[in-house]
Amino acid sequence: MRLVTFEKNGTARLGLAEGLEVADLSGSDSTPASLLALLAAGDEGLAAARKAAISAPRYPLDELKLLPVLPRPGKIICLGLNYAAHAAEGGREKPDYPNFFMRCATSLLGHQIPIVRPRVSTQLDFEAELAAIIGREVPRHVAREEALTFVAGYACFNDVSVRDYQRRTPQWTIGKNFDATGPFGPAFVTADELPAGAAGLKIESRLNGEVMQSANTRDMIFPVDETIALLSECMTLEVGDVLVMGTPAGVGFARTPPLWMKEGDTIEVEIEGVGLLSNPIVNEI
Amino acid sequence: MRLVTFEKNGTARLGLAEGLEVADLSGSDSTPASLLALLAAGDEGLAAARKAAISAPRYPLDELKLLPVLPRPGKIICLGLNYAAHAAEGGREKPDYPNFFMRCATSLLGHQIPIVRPRVSTQLDFEAELAAIIGREVPRHVAREEALTFVAGYACFNDVSVRDYQRRTPQWTIGKNFDATGPFGPAFVTADELPAGAAGLKIESRLNGEVMQSANTRDMIFPVDETIALLSECMTLEVGDVLVMGTPAGVGFARTPPLWMKEGDTIEVEIEGVGLLSNPIVNEI
Repeated sequence: MRLVTFEKNGTARLGLAEGLEVADLSGSDSTPASLLALLAAGDEGLAAARKAAISAPRYPLDELKLLPVLPRPGKIICLGLNYAAHAAEGGREKPDYPNFFMRCATSLLGHQIPIVRPRVSTQLDFEAELAAIIGREVPRHVAREEALTFVAGYACFNDVSVRDYQRRTPQWTIGKNFDATGPFGPAFVTADELPAGAAGLKIESRLNGEVMQSANTRDMIFPVDETIALLSECMTLEVGDVLVMGTPAGVGFARTPPLWMKEGDTIEVEIEGVGLLSNPIVNEI
Repeated sequence: MRLVTFEKNGTARLGLAEGLEVADLSGSDSTPASLLALLAAGDEGLAAARKAAISAPRYPLDELKLLPVLPRPGKIICLGLNYAAHAAEGGREKPDYPNFFMRCATSLLGHQIPIVRPRVSTQLDFEAELAAIIGREVPRHVAREEALTFVAGYACFNDVSVRDYQRRTPQWTIGKNFDATGPFGPAFVTADELPAGAAGLKIESRLNGEVMQSANTRDMIFPVDETIALLSECMTLEVGDVLVMGTPAGVGFARTPPLWMKEGDTIEVEIEGVGLLSNPIVNEI
Protein backbone atom coordinates (compact mmCIF):
# COMPACT_ATOMS: atom_id res chain seq x y z
CA MET A 1 0.00 0.00 0.00
CA ARG A 2 1.18 3.53 -0.82
CA LEU A 3 0.05 6.42 1.34
CA VAL A 4 0.60 10.12 0.79
CA THR A 5 0.14 13.22 2.90
CA PHE A 6 -1.20 16.11 0.86
CA GLU A 7 -2.55 19.60 1.39
CA LYS A 8 -6.06 20.61 0.47
CA ASN A 9 -7.66 23.89 1.51
CA GLY A 10 -4.75 24.58 3.82
CA THR A 11 -4.92 21.39 5.85
CA ALA A 12 -2.93 18.16 5.72
CA ARG A 13 -4.84 15.10 4.53
CA LEU A 14 -4.07 11.42 4.20
CA GLY A 15 -4.44 9.68 0.85
CA LEU A 16 -4.07 6.20 -0.56
CA ALA A 17 -2.21 6.29 -3.86
CA GLU A 18 -3.33 3.83 -6.53
CA GLY A 19 -1.72 4.26 -9.91
CA LEU A 20 -2.16 7.87 -10.97
CA GLU A 21 -4.96 8.56 -8.48
CA VAL A 22 -5.19 9.31 -4.78
CA ALA A 23 -8.17 8.31 -2.66
CA ASP A 24 -8.75 10.99 0.00
CA LEU A 25 -9.09 9.12 3.31
CA SER A 26 -9.44 12.18 5.51
CA GLY A 27 -13.17 12.49 4.96
CA SER A 28 -13.88 9.06 6.41
CA ASP A 29 -14.90 8.84 10.06
CA SER A 30 -13.45 5.35 10.34
CA THR A 31 -9.95 6.25 9.11
CA PRO A 32 -7.23 8.02 11.06
CA ALA A 33 -6.68 11.55 9.73
CA SER A 34 -2.89 11.35 9.45
CA LEU A 35 -0.26 8.77 8.61
CA LEU A 36 1.03 9.01 12.16
CA ALA A 37 -2.41 8.20 13.60
CA LEU A 38 -2.86 5.43 11.05
CA LEU A 39 0.46 3.85 12.02
CA ALA A 40 -0.48 4.12 15.69
CA ALA A 41 -3.64 2.15 14.92
CA GLY A 42 -1.53 -0.74 13.59
CA ASP A 43 -2.90 -3.37 11.20
CA GLU A 44 -6.46 -2.21 11.90
CA GLY A 45 -5.53 1.24 10.68
CA LEU A 46 -4.24 -0.13 7.40
CA ALA A 47 -7.35 -2.31 6.97
CA ALA A 48 -9.61 0.69 7.65
CA ALA A 49 -7.66 2.73 5.10
CA ARG A 50 -8.09 0.04 2.45
CA LYS A 51 -11.82 -0.13 3.11
CA ALA A 52 -12.34 3.64 3.20
CA ALA A 53 -10.47 4.04 -0.09
CA ILE A 54 -13.17 2.11 -1.97
CA SER A 55 -15.75 4.87 -1.60
CA ALA A 56 -13.45 7.86 -1.06
CA PRO A 57 -13.24 10.82 -3.45
CA ARG A 58 -10.31 10.53 -5.85
CA TYR A 59 -7.96 13.12 -7.26
CA PRO A 60 -5.25 12.91 -9.92
CA LEU A 61 -1.93 12.40 -8.10
CA ASP A 62 -0.11 14.96 -10.23
CA GLU A 63 -2.56 17.72 -9.28
CA LEU A 64 -1.98 17.39 -5.53
CA LYS A 65 0.45 19.36 -3.40
CA LEU A 66 2.30 16.60 -1.57
CA LEU A 67 3.66 17.20 1.93
CA PRO A 68 6.47 15.27 3.61
CA VAL A 69 5.37 11.67 4.18
CA LEU A 70 5.23 12.49 7.90
CA PRO A 71 5.18 16.28 8.40
CA ARG A 72 6.17 16.22 12.10
CA PRO A 73 7.99 13.02 13.07
CA GLY A 74 8.85 12.61 16.75
CA LYS A 75 12.47 12.23 15.74
CA ILE A 76 14.49 11.90 12.56
CA ILE A 77 17.74 10.00 13.04
CA CYS A 78 20.21 10.08 10.16
CA LEU A 79 23.29 7.96 9.49
CA GLY A 80 26.40 9.50 7.99
CA LEU A 81 29.00 7.53 6.01
CA ASN A 82 26.82 4.41 5.73
CA TYR A 83 28.11 3.35 2.30
CA ALA A 84 31.82 2.45 2.19
CA ALA A 85 32.44 4.14 -1.19
CA HIS A 86 30.90 7.39 0.08
CA ALA A 87 33.02 7.34 3.23
CA ALA A 88 36.08 6.82 1.01
CA GLU A 89 35.24 9.67 -1.38
CA GLY A 90 35.16 12.04 1.61
CA GLY A 91 38.52 10.76 2.84
CA ARG A 92 36.96 8.97 5.82
CA GLU A 93 37.49 5.49 7.24
CA LYS A 94 34.67 2.98 7.03
CA PRO A 95 32.98 3.49 10.43
CA ASP A 96 32.64 0.70 13.01
CA TYR A 97 29.62 2.43 14.56
CA PRO A 98 27.05 4.61 12.78
CA ASN A 99 27.64 8.38 12.67
CA PHE A 100 24.21 9.34 14.01
CA PHE A 101 22.89 12.88 13.79
CA MET A 102 19.39 14.35 13.81
CA ARG A 103 17.19 16.38 11.56
CA CYS A 104 14.24 18.49 12.64
CA ALA A 105 10.78 18.78 11.08
CA THR A 106 11.30 22.37 9.91
CA SER A 107 13.81 21.05 7.35
CA LEU A 108 11.30 18.70 5.64
CA LEU A 109 9.41 19.17 2.40
CA GLY A 110 7.32 17.13 0.01
CA HIS A 111 7.80 15.85 -3.53
CA GLN A 112 8.08 18.63 -6.11
CA ILE A 113 8.25 21.40 -3.51
CA PRO A 114 11.32 23.60 -4.06
CA ILE A 115 14.50 22.98 -2.11
CA VAL A 116 15.78 26.39 -0.98
CA ARG A 117 19.41 27.30 -1.60
CA PRO A 118 20.14 29.56 1.37
CA ARG A 119 21.48 33.09 1.16
CA VAL A 120 24.48 32.27 3.32
CA SER A 121 25.99 29.47 1.23
CA THR A 122 26.48 28.25 -2.33
CA GLN A 123 27.53 24.73 -1.27
CA LEU A 124 24.19 22.95 -1.66
CA ASP A 125 24.64 19.21 -2.17
CA PHE A 126 22.32 16.20 -2.74
CA GLU A 127 22.28 12.85 -0.91
CA ALA A 128 19.94 10.08 -2.09
CA GLU A 129 18.81 8.04 0.90
CA LEU A 130 16.35 5.39 2.00
CA ALA A 131 14.06 6.34 4.92
CA ALA A 132 12.62 3.66 7.21
CA ILE A 133 9.56 4.54 9.29
CA ILE A 134 8.89 2.92 12.67
CA GLY A 135 5.38 1.44 13.02
CA ARG A 136 5.41 0.10 16.58
CA GLU A 137 7.37 1.25 19.62
CA VAL A 138 10.64 -0.66 19.66
CA PRO A 139 11.49 -2.31 22.99
CA ARG A 140 14.92 -1.43 24.37
CA HIS A 141 17.65 -3.95 23.46
CA VAL A 142 15.69 -5.56 20.68
CA ALA A 143 17.43 -8.39 18.86
CA ARG A 144 18.52 -7.69 15.30
CA GLU A 145 16.47 -10.69 14.16
CA GLU A 146 13.27 -9.05 15.42
CA ALA A 147 14.06 -5.47 14.48
CA LEU A 148 12.37 -5.37 11.07
CA THR A 149 8.99 -6.31 12.58
CA PHE A 150 8.90 -2.74 13.96
CA VAL A 151 9.30 -1.08 10.57
CA ALA A 152 6.00 -0.04 8.99
CA GLY A 153 7.40 1.07 5.66
CA TYR A 154 9.84 3.08 3.61
CA ALA A 155 10.18 6.24 1.55
CA CYS A 156 12.78 8.15 -0.44
CA PHE A 157 14.69 10.94 1.28
CA ASN A 158 17.08 13.57 -0.03
CA ASP A 159 19.44 14.55 2.80
CA VAL A 160 20.33 17.86 1.15
CA SER A 161 23.40 19.30 2.85
CA VAL A 162 24.88 22.78 3.13
CA ARG A 163 28.48 21.61 3.08
CA ASP A 164 30.34 24.63 4.44
CA TYR A 165 27.96 24.81 7.42
CA GLN A 166 28.22 21.03 7.87
CA ARG A 167 32.00 21.47 8.25
CA ARG A 168 32.15 24.67 10.30
CA THR A 169 32.58 22.48 13.39
CA PRO A 170 32.97 18.71 13.85
CA GLN A 171 29.18 18.50 14.36
CA TRP A 172 27.39 18.16 11.02
CA THR A 173 23.94 18.97 12.44
CA ILE A 174 23.59 22.60 11.36
CA GLY A 175 24.48 21.84 7.73
CA LYS A 176 21.73 19.20 7.68
CA ASN A 177 18.93 21.32 9.11
CA PHE A 178 18.43 24.35 6.91
CA ASP A 179 14.77 25.07 6.14
CA ALA A 180 13.44 23.26 3.07
CA THR A 181 16.39 20.90 2.59
CA GLY A 182 14.81 17.54 3.49
CA PRO A 183 12.62 16.16 0.67
CA PHE A 184 10.76 13.14 2.06
CA GLY A 185 8.41 11.24 -0.24
CA PRO A 186 6.63 11.11 -2.54
CA ALA A 187 4.82 8.26 -0.76
CA PHE A 188 5.05 5.96 2.22
CA VAL A 189 5.33 2.36 0.95
CA THR A 190 4.32 -0.39 3.35
CA ALA A 191 7.07 -2.86 4.15
CA ASP A 192 5.15 -5.81 2.66
CA GLU A 193 5.70 -4.36 -0.84
CA LEU A 194 9.50 -4.52 -0.54
CA PRO A 195 12.25 -7.03 0.25
CA ALA A 196 13.14 -7.44 3.94
CA GLY A 197 14.84 -4.28 5.18
CA ALA A 198 14.36 -2.73 1.72
CA ALA A 199 17.68 -4.36 0.85
CA GLY A 200 18.80 -5.12 -2.67
CA LEU A 201 17.16 -2.09 -4.26
CA LYS A 202 18.77 0.19 -6.80
CA ILE A 203 19.19 3.72 -5.38
CA GLU A 204 20.03 6.64 -7.62
CA SER A 205 20.16 10.42 -7.75
CA ARG A 206 19.98 12.44 -10.95
CA LEU A 207 20.73 16.14 -11.32
CA ASN A 208 18.96 17.64 -14.34
CA GLY A 209 18.59 14.09 -15.66
CA GLU A 210 22.26 13.13 -15.32
CA VAL A 211 23.03 10.21 -12.99
CA MET A 212 25.05 11.40 -9.98
CA GLN A 213 24.77 8.49 -7.56
CA SER A 214 23.94 4.90 -8.46
CA ALA A 215 24.26 2.10 -5.96
CA ASN A 216 22.27 -0.59 -4.20
CA THR A 217 20.73 -0.49 -0.73
CA ARG A 218 22.43 -3.82 0.03
CA ASP A 219 25.70 -1.86 0.18
CA MET A 220 24.74 -0.08 3.40
CA ILE A 221 27.37 -0.75 6.07
CA PHE A 222 24.69 -0.76 8.79
CA PRO A 223 21.43 -2.10 7.34
CA VAL A 224 18.03 -1.19 8.79
CA ASP A 225 17.78 -4.16 11.19
CA GLU A 226 21.22 -3.63 12.71
CA THR A 227 20.64 0.14 12.97
CA ILE A 228 17.43 -0.41 14.94
CA ALA A 229 19.12 -2.93 17.24
CA LEU A 230 21.99 -0.48 17.90
CA LEU A 231 19.65 2.45 18.55
CA SER A 232 17.57 0.32 20.93
CA GLU A 233 20.63 -0.02 23.19
CA CYS A 234 20.32 3.74 23.73
CA MET A 235 16.80 5.02 23.27
CA THR A 236 13.15 4.30 22.65
CA LEU A 237 12.09 4.42 19.01
CA GLU A 238 8.44 5.46 18.79
CA VAL A 239 5.71 5.12 16.18
CA GLY A 240 6.46 7.52 13.34
CA ASP A 241 10.15 7.96 14.10
CA VAL A 242 12.20 8.09 10.91
CA LEU A 243 15.62 6.57 10.18
CA VAL A 244 17.46 8.12 7.23
CA MET A 245 19.91 5.47 6.14
CA GLY A 246 22.87 7.27 4.58
CA THR A 247 23.96 8.03 1.04
CA PRO A 248 26.13 6.26 -1.56
CA ALA A 249 29.14 7.70 -3.41
CA GLY A 250 28.80 10.38 -6.07
CA VAL A 251 27.78 13.49 -4.11
CA GLY A 252 28.70 16.93 -5.36
CA PHE A 253 31.42 17.90 -2.89
CA ALA A 254 33.56 14.89 -3.83
CA ARG A 255 33.62 15.76 -7.54
CA THR A 256 36.42 17.64 -9.31
CA PRO A 257 35.55 20.45 -9.44
CA PRO A 258 32.84 20.28 -6.75
CA LEU A 259 29.31 20.37 -8.13
CA TRP A 260 26.77 22.47 -6.21
CA MET A 261 23.05 22.70 -6.89
CA LYS A 262 21.73 26.07 -8.03
CA GLU A 263 18.45 27.76 -8.86
CA GLY A 264 16.73 26.14 -11.83
CA ASP A 265 18.22 22.68 -11.23
CA THR A 266 16.05 19.63 -10.60
CA ILE A 267 17.29 16.86 -8.32
CA GLU A 268 15.72 13.40 -8.34
CA VAL A 269 16.11 10.53 -5.89
CA GLU A 270 14.82 7.19 -7.09
CA ILE A 271 14.74 3.92 -5.20
CA GLU A 272 13.56 0.80 -6.98
CA GLY A 273 10.05 -0.10 -5.80
CA VAL A 274 9.95 2.83 -3.36
CA GLY A 275 9.46 5.81 -5.62
CA LEU A 276 10.82 8.82 -7.44
CA LEU A 277 11.29 12.00 -5.41
CA SER A 278 11.90 15.09 -7.51
CA ASN A 279 12.49 18.67 -6.37
CA PRO A 280 13.51 21.89 -8.10
CA ILE A 281 16.01 24.28 -6.54
CA VAL A 282 15.20 27.94 -5.87
CA ASN A 283 17.22 30.66 -4.21
CA GLU A 284 16.18 31.95 -0.82
CA ILE A 285 14.59 35.33 -1.43
CA MET B 1 5.85 33.91 36.46
CA ARG B 2 6.86 30.28 37.01
CA LEU B 3 5.00 27.54 35.22
CA VAL B 4 5.32 23.80 35.67
CA THR B 5 4.10 20.78 33.74
CA PHE B 6 3.00 18.00 36.08
CA GLU B 7 1.25 14.67 35.91
CA LYS B 8 -2.03 13.95 37.62
CA ASN B 9 -4.14 10.86 37.01
CA GLY B 10 -1.91 9.93 34.10
CA THR B 11 -2.24 13.15 32.13
CA ALA B 12 0.03 16.18 31.76
CA ARG B 13 -1.28 19.39 33.33
CA LEU B 14 -0.11 22.97 33.42
CA GLY B 15 0.46 24.70 36.75
CA LEU B 16 1.48 28.11 38.00
CA ALA B 17 4.04 27.81 40.79
CA GLU B 18 3.80 30.34 43.62
CA GLY B 19 6.11 29.73 46.53
CA LEU B 20 5.56 26.17 47.73
CA GLU B 21 2.23 25.76 45.96
CA VAL B 22 1.08 25.08 42.41
CA ALA B 23 -2.21 26.38 41.02
CA ASP B 24 -3.65 23.79 38.60
CA LEU B 25 -4.55 25.72 35.44
CA SER B 26 -5.68 22.73 33.40
CA GLY B 27 -9.21 22.77 34.81
CA SER B 28 -9.90 26.27 33.52
CA ASP B 29 -11.71 26.63 30.20
CA SER B 30 -10.03 29.97 29.56
CA THR B 31 -6.46 28.73 29.95
CA PRO B 32 -4.44 26.73 27.44
CA ALA B 33 -3.93 23.15 28.65
CA SER B 34 -0.18 22.99 28.06
CA LEU B 35 2.80 25.31 28.24
CA LEU B 36 3.22 24.99 24.47
CA ALA B 37 -0.38 26.14 23.87
CA LEU B 38 0.03 28.92 26.42
CA LEU B 39 3.18 30.19 24.69
CA ALA B 40 1.39 30.04 21.34
CA ALA B 41 -1.31 32.29 22.81
CA GLY B 42 1.30 34.96 23.58
CA ASP B 43 0.78 37.66 26.18
CA GLU B 44 -2.93 36.87 26.34
CA GLY B 45 -2.08 33.32 27.37
CA LEU B 46 0.06 34.55 30.24
CA ALA B 47 -2.65 36.98 31.36
CA ALA B 48 -5.28 34.22 31.25
CA ALA B 49 -3.00 31.98 33.31
CA ARG B 50 -2.55 34.68 35.93
CA LYS B 51 -6.30 35.19 36.18
CA ALA B 52 -7.16 31.49 36.25
CA ALA B 53 -4.63 30.87 39.01
CA ILE B 54 -6.65 33.02 41.45
CA SER B 55 -9.48 30.52 41.71
CA ALA B 56 -7.64 27.33 40.68
CA PRO B 57 -7.17 24.33 42.99
CA ARG B 58 -3.75 24.35 44.64
CA TYR B 59 -1.39 21.52 45.50
CA PRO B 60 1.86 21.46 47.44
CA LEU B 61 4.72 21.65 44.91
CA ASP B 62 6.72 18.91 46.59
CA GLU B 63 3.89 16.40 46.25
CA LEU B 64 3.61 16.73 42.48
CA LYS B 65 5.28 14.57 39.86
CA LEU B 66 6.91 17.17 37.62
CA LEU B 67 7.36 16.47 33.91
CA PRO B 68 9.89 18.16 31.61
CA VAL B 69 9.01 21.86 31.27
CA LEU B 70 7.96 21.08 27.69
CA PRO B 71 7.44 17.33 27.26
CA ARG B 72 7.54 17.32 23.42
CA PRO B 73 9.38 20.36 22.03
CA GLY B 74 9.41 20.73 18.25
CA LYS B 75 13.18 20.76 18.39
CA ILE B 76 15.88 20.88 21.02
CA ILE B 77 19.11 22.47 19.79
CA CYS B 78 22.16 22.14 22.01
CA LEU B 79 25.50 23.97 21.94
CA GLY B 80 28.71 22.12 22.70
CA LEU B 81 31.87 23.83 24.01
CA ASN B 82 30.11 27.12 24.74
CA TYR B 83 32.26 28.05 27.77
CA ALA B 84 35.96 28.59 27.02
CA ALA B 85 37.17 26.82 30.18
CA HIS B 86 35.09 23.73 29.34
CA ALA B 87 36.43 23.62 25.78
CA ALA B 88 39.95 23.85 27.23
CA GLU B 89 39.43 21.05 29.79
CA GLY B 90 38.45 18.73 26.92
CA GLY B 91 41.54 19.73 24.93
CA ARG B 92 39.49 21.67 22.37
CA GLU B 93 40.00 25.09 20.82
CA LYS B 94 37.54 27.85 21.64
CA PRO B 95 35.07 27.53 18.73
CA ASP B 96 34.40 30.38 16.29
CA TYR B 97 30.96 28.95 15.49
CA PRO B 98 28.68 26.99 17.83
CA ASN B 99 28.93 23.19 17.84
CA PHE B 100 25.22 22.55 17.34
CA PHE B 101 23.67 19.14 17.89
CA MET B 102 20.14 18.01 18.69
CA ARG B 103 18.33 16.16 21.41
CA CYS B 104 15.02 14.34 21.07
CA ALA B 105 12.02 14.35 23.39
CA THR B 106 12.45 10.72 24.46
CA SER B 107 15.60 11.77 26.34
CA LEU B 108 13.78 14.32 28.55
CA LEU B 109 12.65 14.00 32.16
CA GLY B 110 11.36 16.19 34.95
CA HIS B 111 12.75 17.38 38.27
CA GLN B 112 13.38 14.56 40.75
CA ILE B 113 12.70 11.82 38.19
CA PRO B 114 15.60 9.33 38.05
CA ILE B 115 18.28 9.68 35.40
CA VAL B 116 18.93 6.18 34.06
CA ARG B 117 22.52 4.93 33.83
CA PRO B 118 22.33 2.66 30.78
CA ARG B 119 23.36 -1.00 30.71
CA VAL B 120 25.83 -0.42 27.92
CA SER B 121 28.05 2.21 29.57
CA THR B 122 29.45 3.34 32.91
CA GLN B 123 30.55 6.76 31.60
CA LEU B 124 27.56 8.82 32.74
CA ASP B 125 28.45 12.51 33.10
CA PHE B 126 26.63 15.70 34.15
CA GLU B 127 26.45 19.07 32.34
CA ALA B 128 24.73 22.04 34.00
CA GLU B 129 23.12 24.21 31.33
CA LEU B 130 20.73 27.08 30.79
CA ALA B 131 17.76 26.38 28.49
CA ALA B 132 16.08 29.20 26.56
CA ILE B 133 12.54 28.63 25.25
CA ILE B 134 11.27 30.34 22.11
CA GLY B 135 7.93 32.13 22.56
CA ARG B 136 7.27 33.51 19.08
CA GLU B 137 8.34 32.22 15.68
CA VAL B 138 11.67 33.82 14.85
CA PRO B 139 11.89 35.42 11.41
CA ARG B 140 14.80 34.24 9.27
CA HIS B 141 17.89 36.48 9.50
CA VAL B 142 16.78 38.23 12.65
CA ALA B 143 19.16 40.88 13.98
CA ARG B 144 20.97 40.02 17.19
CA GLU B 145 19.52 43.19 18.74
CA GLU B 146 15.98 41.87 18.28
CA ALA B 147 16.64 38.22 19.06
CA LEU B 148 15.77 38.26 22.76
CA THR B 149 12.25 39.52 22.08
CA PHE B 150 11.50 36.00 20.79
CA VAL B 151 12.53 34.26 24.01
CA ALA B 152 9.60 33.51 26.32
CA GLY B 153 11.61 32.24 29.24
CA TYR B 154 14.27 29.99 30.70
CA ALA B 155 14.77 26.80 32.67
CA CYS B 156 17.58 24.63 34.02
CA PHE B 157 18.78 21.69 31.93
CA ASN B 158 21.16 18.85 32.69
CA ASP B 159 22.70 17.69 29.40
CA VAL B 160 23.64 14.27 30.84
CA SER B 161 26.10 12.59 28.49
CA VAL B 162 27.14 8.99 27.91
CA ARG B 163 30.75 9.82 27.12
CA ASP B 164 31.95 6.65 25.40
CA TYR B 165 28.95 6.74 23.06
CA GLN B 166 29.45 10.48 22.52
CA ARG B 167 32.97 9.69 21.28
CA ARG B 168 32.36 6.51 19.27
CA THR B 169 32.26 8.69 16.16
CA PRO B 170 32.87 12.42 15.58
CA GLN B 171 29.11 12.98 15.95
CA TRP B 172 28.17 13.45 19.61
CA THR B 173 24.42 12.98 19.05
CA ILE B 174 24.01 9.38 20.20
CA GLY B 175 25.77 10.00 23.52
CA LYS B 176 23.37 12.89 24.19
CA ASN B 177 20.13 11.06 23.45
CA PHE B 178 19.88 8.06 25.74
CA ASP B 179 16.44 7.67 27.33
CA ALA B 180 16.04 9.57 30.63
CA THR B 181 19.22 11.64 30.37
CA GLY B 182 17.79 15.12 29.83
CA PRO B 183 16.44 16.68 33.07
CA PHE B 184 14.58 19.86 32.11
CA GLY B 185 13.02 21.94 34.86
CA PRO B 186 11.83 22.24 37.52
CA ALA B 187 9.93 25.26 36.17
CA PHE B 188 9.68 27.56 33.19
CA VAL B 189 10.59 31.09 34.32
CA THR B 190 9.30 33.94 32.19
CA ALA B 191 12.01 36.18 30.75
CA ASP B 192 10.77 39.25 32.62
CA GLU B 193 11.97 37.73 35.90
CA LEU B 194 15.60 37.54 34.73
CA PRO B 195 18.31 39.80 33.32
CA ALA B 196 18.36 40.17 29.51
CA GLY B 197 19.43 36.88 27.95
CA ALA B 198 19.62 35.33 31.43
CA ALA B 199 23.19 36.66 31.49
CA GLY B 200 25.16 37.28 34.66
CA LEU B 201 23.66 34.37 36.61
CA LYS B 202 25.59 31.92 38.74
CA ILE B 203 25.36 28.40 37.30
CA GLU B 204 26.42 25.39 39.32
CA SER B 205 26.23 21.62 39.47
CA ARG B 206 26.60 19.58 42.64
CA LEU B 207 27.07 15.81 42.87
CA ASN B 208 25.91 14.46 46.22
CA GLY B 209 26.18 17.99 47.57
CA GLU B 210 29.75 18.62 46.38
CA VAL B 211 30.23 21.48 43.90
CA MET B 212 31.38 20.15 40.52
CA GLN B 213 30.82 23.11 38.20
CA SER B 214 30.56 26.75 39.22
CA ALA B 215 30.54 29.54 36.68
CA ASN B 216 28.47 32.43 35.40
CA THR B 217 26.18 32.49 32.37
CA ARG B 218 27.95 35.66 31.19
CA ASP B 219 30.89 33.41 30.33
CA MET B 220 29.05 31.77 27.43
CA ILE B 221 31.04 32.22 24.22
CA PHE B 222 27.80 32.51 22.20
CA PRO B 223 25.10 34.13 24.35
CA VAL B 224 21.40 33.55 23.73
CA ASP B 225 20.87 36.54 21.42
CA GLU B 226 23.82 35.72 19.14
CA THR B 227 22.83 32.03 19.07
CA ILE B 228 19.32 32.90 17.89
CA ALA B 229 20.67 35.27 15.24
CA LEU B 230 23.07 32.58 13.96
CA LEU B 231 20.37 29.88 13.89
CA SER B 232 18.01 32.21 12.05
CA GLU B 233 20.49 32.29 9.13
CA CYS B 234 19.72 28.59 8.71
CA MET B 235 16.29 27.63 9.98
CA THR B 236 12.98 28.68 11.43
CA LEU B 237 12.76 28.62 15.22
CA GLU B 238 9.20 27.91 16.27
CA VAL B 239 7.19 28.48 19.44
CA GLY B 240 8.33 25.99 22.06
CA ASP B 241 11.70 25.22 20.48
CA VAL B 242 14.41 24.86 23.11
CA LEU B 243 18.02 26.06 23.01
CA VAL B 244 20.36 24.32 25.47
CA MET B 245 23.22 26.71 25.94
CA GLY B 246 26.28 24.62 26.81
CA THR B 247 28.08 23.74 30.01
CA PRO B 248 30.96 25.27 32.01
CA ALA B 249 34.16 23.54 33.14
CA GLY B 250 34.20 20.88 35.83
CA VAL B 251 32.48 17.90 34.20
CA GLY B 252 33.34 14.36 35.26
CA PHE B 253 35.31 13.20 32.21
CA ALA B 254 37.88 15.99 32.59
CA ARG B 255 38.72 15.07 36.20
CA THR B 256 41.66 12.92 37.30
CA PRO B 257 40.59 10.20 37.67
CA PRO B 258 37.37 10.64 35.67
CA LEU B 259 34.26 10.85 37.82
CA TRP B 260 31.17 9.02 36.56
CA MET B 261 27.69 9.13 38.10
CA LYS B 262 26.38 5.87 39.55
CA GLU B 263 23.24 4.48 41.13
CA GLY B 264 22.40 6.21 44.39
CA ASP B 265 24.00 9.53 43.43
CA THR B 266 22.05 12.78 43.28
CA ILE B 267 22.97 15.45 40.75
CA GLU B 268 21.79 19.04 41.09
CA VAL B 269 21.86 21.89 38.58
CA GLU B 270 21.19 25.32 40.02
CA ILE B 271 20.99 28.60 38.16
CA GLU B 272 20.52 31.81 40.13
CA GLY B 273 16.94 33.04 39.79
CA VAL B 274 16.00 30.16 37.46
CA GLY B 275 15.78 27.21 39.80
CA LEU B 276 17.24 24.07 41.29
CA LEU B 277 16.94 20.88 39.24
CA SER B 278 17.73 17.71 41.19
CA ASN B 279 17.70 14.11 39.97
CA PRO B 280 18.79 10.80 41.46
CA ILE B 281 20.65 8.20 39.39
CA VAL B 282 19.36 4.64 38.97
CA ASN B 283 20.71 1.77 36.92
CA GLU B 284 18.78 0.60 33.88
CA ILE B 285 17.08 -2.62 34.89
